[in-house]
Parts: sequence; C-alpha cells; structure tokens
Amino acid sequence: MPRRYFEDFPEGLSVELGSVAFTSEAIVEFARAHDPQPMHTDPVAAQSSIYGGLIASGWHTAALVMRLLVENYLAAESSLGSAGLDELRWPHPVRPGDTLRVRAMVVESRRSVSKPDRGIVKAVVEATNTDGATVMRATAINFMLVRPDPGA
Amino acid sequence: MPRRYFEDFPEGLSVELGSVAFTSEAIVEFARAHDPQPMHTDPVAAQSSIYGGLIASGWHTAALVMRLLVENYLAAESSLGSAGLDELRWPHPVRPGDTLRVRAMVVESRRSVSKPDRGIVKAVVEATNTDGATVMRATAINFMLVRPDPGA
Repeated sequence: MPRRYFEDFPEGLSVELGSVAFTSEAIVEFARAHDPQPMHTDPVAAQSSIYGGLIASGWHTAALVMRLLVENYLAAESSLGSAGLDELRWPHPVRPGDTLRVRAMVVESRRSVSKPDRGIVKAVVEATNTDGATVMRATAINFMLVRPDPGA
Repeated sequence: MPRRYFEDFPEGLSVELGSVAFTSEAIVEFARAHDPQPMHTDPVAAQSSIYGGLIASGWHTAALVMRLLVENYLAAESSLGSAGLDELRWPHPVRPGDTLRVRAMVVESRRSVSKPDRGIVKAVVEATNTDGATVMRATAINFMLVRPDPGA
C-alpha cells in the first residue's frame, strides 16, 4: 500500500474496512475481562433479560471496529492518534453468530492552523449486521501528518 | 450492597469508582489485540513519535473505566445496557506507570415515557491521572429498571 497522509483523506472519502464475526465464546471472554454484566457473560441469565439472549459488550464491538480502522483506514506513517469520538452509539445489539460490515466516511478534513504539520479528519464509522441493521455508529476524530515536503 | 434501581441515580449523584493502573506490558498486550499502532505496541517506535514514548490505546482506558463502572456504579439487578456515549474524549495520554482515578457524576435522570418500567441516566465519567490531568471524559447514557412495585 502506498504511504498515505492527511491529503489522502478528503471529505467524501468512503472506505470499506471489511468484516468481523462474533462467537459466543469471544463475547463472553471479552466481557469477563472488561464489561462483566450478565447480559454479556452469562447465556442463561441473558435469556431472561430484555435482550432474550447473550449480546456483545458495545466495547467489544468498538474494539473490533478499531482493529479494522488500524488495518484498513489509518496509516502508520501519518496517524498521530485521536482526540476522541462524537456520539458513539450502539443502536442495535450484536449477537453470537453475527458478522458485521464496517465502513468509514470522511465528513470533515481540515489542516490545523496552530500545528501546520498535521490535519484533523472526522469520519463517520458504521458497523452493520447482515440484516442491514446499524449496530454501531460513531464520529471519530483523528490527527494525521500532512505529506512531507520532498524538497525538505 | 443494597439492590439499586433508577431511583438511586438522581441528578447530582457523584460516585468515586476507584482507580486503575497501567503497565507497559498491559498497554502493549491490549493494543496488539485491538489497536495495533506503533505508539501503543512498540516502545522504540513510540519514542520517536510526537508522544515521546509508549501511550495506552484510548480503547484500553475505556475498557478499564467500563470495568469500574460495572463494579462500582451500575447494578446487575437494574442495568439494561447503554445507548452509547456522547463526546468520548482522550484529552491527555496515558503512559506506563500511570494510575487513574475514575468518577461518575449523574447529569440527567429521567423516567422513560414510552417504556415506564425504566429510566434514562446520563453520567459524565472522568478519569484523572496523579498529576490531576483528565485523560478520559465521556457522557454515558444508561437504561435502568425502576424499583419494582412491592405490591405487584
């Protein structure tokens, strides 16, 4: 893959990031470590919850989406980290057996005024299940280096 | 601990959730699985980054904060899950050796009109390092069951 910088993330860019699958084992393992609520860790208790069965922690979904962002969206040569996210939402539960497709769409891309070596890129990131339901949506805010001056 | 429901999370409630510590081993392990960027996984490469050394993935911080929310804020008998978060921010990096104190403050608490068995509780969650710098801030939105009618 060619080296990519701030200039390669213009407003309107849409990137398919691939897909991720959830097993009940992985759902329980992640939740035991990070979000040990019965709806995520105990299939029997989850059955009598409002969800009617085990669902993934939203943080598990976020972690798998982040991995796809690193592999297929961000570039190691220019990624300077993130300020955070606006409106992280989990509108629909993720269940064992679900496979999600993930997409990022750049909605804002501007050069920093105070630090001209970088730009700020905002992207709407969406994960969708095979029924077409959006299970996670967020606006990610990333700092990226501008392309180095070849004469410098 | 007594059973807690929506009514136990009034606006203005402030809860100290405890503290979490970060080692470089844990930072690298989490990031290799979920956020494999050099600033999080490679101490040598991180040295020459804008951060001057290894920093934790923001998702790692979020996961440890979530665990404290489950252990010391949410109640298994009433937690119905989360719609998401507003303005998740990582204003300051987390470094190996850092210990964070975490606090949740309820900023909005209202009974659901469409589903009267539950309420919506918004809380600002903040993690602060020992220098007093805020390293994570977010507004979490949680659904919680109201206290059951003892006559029902």
